[in-house]
Amino acid sequence: MRKREMVKPRVAYLGPEGTFCEQAARKQFSRAALIPYPNIAGVFMAVEKREVDYGAVPVENSTEGSVYATLDRLLESNLMICGEVELKVAHNLIVKPNTSLNQIKVILSHPQALAQCRRFIENTFPDAELREVSSTAKAVELLGSVDNAAAIGTEIAAERSKMVVLKKGIEDESNNLTRFFVLGEVDARPTGRDKTSLIFSAKHIPGALYRVLEIFAVRNINLTKIESRPEKGKPWSYVFFLDFEGHRTEEKSNEALNAMKERCTYIKLLGSYPRAQ
Amino acid sequence: MRKREMVKPRVAYLGPEGTFCEQAARKQFSRAALIPYPNIAGVFMAVEKREVDYGAVPVENSTEGSVYATLDRLLESNLMICGEVELKVAHNLIVKPNTSLNQIKVILSHPQALAQCRRFIENTFPDAELREVSSTAKAVELLGSVDNAAAIGTEIAAERSKMVVLKKGIEDESNNLTRFFVLGEVDARPTGRDKTSLIFSAKHIPGALYRVLEIFAVRNINLTKIESRPEKGKPWSYVFFLDFEGHRTEEKSNEALNAMKERCTYIKLLGSYPRAQ
Repeated sequence: MRKREMVKPRVAYLGPEGTFCEQAARKQFSRAALIPYPNIAGVFMAVEKREVDYGAVPVENSTEGSVYATLDRLLESNLMICGEVELKVAHNLIVKPNTSLNQIKVILSHPQALAQCRRFIENTFPDAELREVSSTAKAVELLGSVDNAAAIGTEIAAERSKMVVLKKGIEDESNNLTRFFVLGEVDARPTGRDKTSLIFSAKHIPGALYRVLEIFAVRNINLTKIESRPEKGKPWSYVFFLDFEGHRTEEKSNEALNAMKERCTYIKLLGSYPRAQ
Repeated sequence: MRKREMVKPRVAYLGPEGTFCEQAARKQFSRAALIPYPNIAGVFMAVEKREVDYGAVPVENSTEGSVYATLDRLLESNLMICGEVELKVAHNLIVKPNTSLNQIKVILSHPQALAQCRRFIENTFPDAELREVSSTAKAVELLGSVDNAAAIGTEIAAERSKMVVLKKGIEDESNNLTRFFVLGEVDARPTGRDKTSLIFSAKHIPGALYRVLEIFAVRNINLTKIESRPEKGKPWSYVFFLDFEGHRTEEKSNEALNAMKERCTYIKLLGSYPRAQ
């Protein structure tokens, strides 16, 4: 272990270079070899196959909600969450040099970025075609080959591709944050300021979810998030993603997790990790 | 009122012609003038401005989850939900005549359809560019003007546009259903087999959500769905969309709604309506 800690960790992130996910990985690991992967599934696989030590993926945006590709992978993967990073996300309208607002007919970006700027787009370009691409960085790259297009992306990506920022800060909510998870083979040790994430299913009867939440309420454990997702292949059945304050090794968290085993039809621990600063 | 009932109702739906939403509107209204609108906001506005009597919008898919554009509009609008329709949704890979699988570099569809076929796309076209357009019908229309492209859409749309179905049933889950809401100025009268939908916020303290769910548990009221959505402009705060069995005018539902007023920081009734058959 000591030897491992001395070498730079290898960290996969959702690329290409210049994404918010790269920034998040850099915030978590001051010294690391950062390696871009083309999609979220690729980041998970890189850690699972031990091509890298850790992976960084976006999990939720404070305006638009969860990143389903990440939630769906967490459900299937054996990786653990070992870290959480929060970033303020600002979006920019980026074009080829000498392009004006009224020439824009196509808007390229990652679906989350398009969604976070939905009101701006509807008001400014009510008839534009929206093209979903795999990242904001990719969207800016593509500007070279698509006519009458604008990309939504970062200033850094605009600079790198020699494109022009036509308008800054086009996100609908100025207080626009994204959470990222750091994934590894094991979760993190307690720091006294931790969170724990898990997935569970409750029975399909009145009061089932209530009886699960009771476990946390009676122990005064704060839930920071609960979200339902469809259970694949079972229409109108759901699994719940739950985050609570505390480390799984703390006594009351541990009691709660044991109590859940009795009241849930399914439970999967995703890990405990220090809360984002 | 009697006079109104004799004329055909006018119903806005998420167009263009040939969408699943048109099918849903037709299932709900056997005799109606159906009018396509280009987006979900447009359907809401058409009802709000009384251009039409009712509107039909998709709200949730059993594989991919909720349609956020609809949830976000429900939060802002004064319209009520007066009906619910469920449809089985099958997707097809559609191309221009004489196009083969290995020529396909671009896949066009509505984001929900792309998501419902994610596994098929990843396995069959790992490098394809995904282009998000406003409907599956629009995606099929666009095939005429985009090279090396496939659309994901309905067989009817393929026929109408003289395109070819290359592969049927490409959705990842064979049991793939979509729920639609019918919107009007008032909700529906009790039928004995109803659901009620509402939105609420709870305090940001341990046990707050638990104390809201208790209201339903002690009255043995079944919750068919609960989903959190980010509260705009307040990072990591959430509102909850809740559906329960029963009509708001029934005694125990009415008691529950009154009890909620005391335990929630915000509550908005979206309406009671007969459950989808």
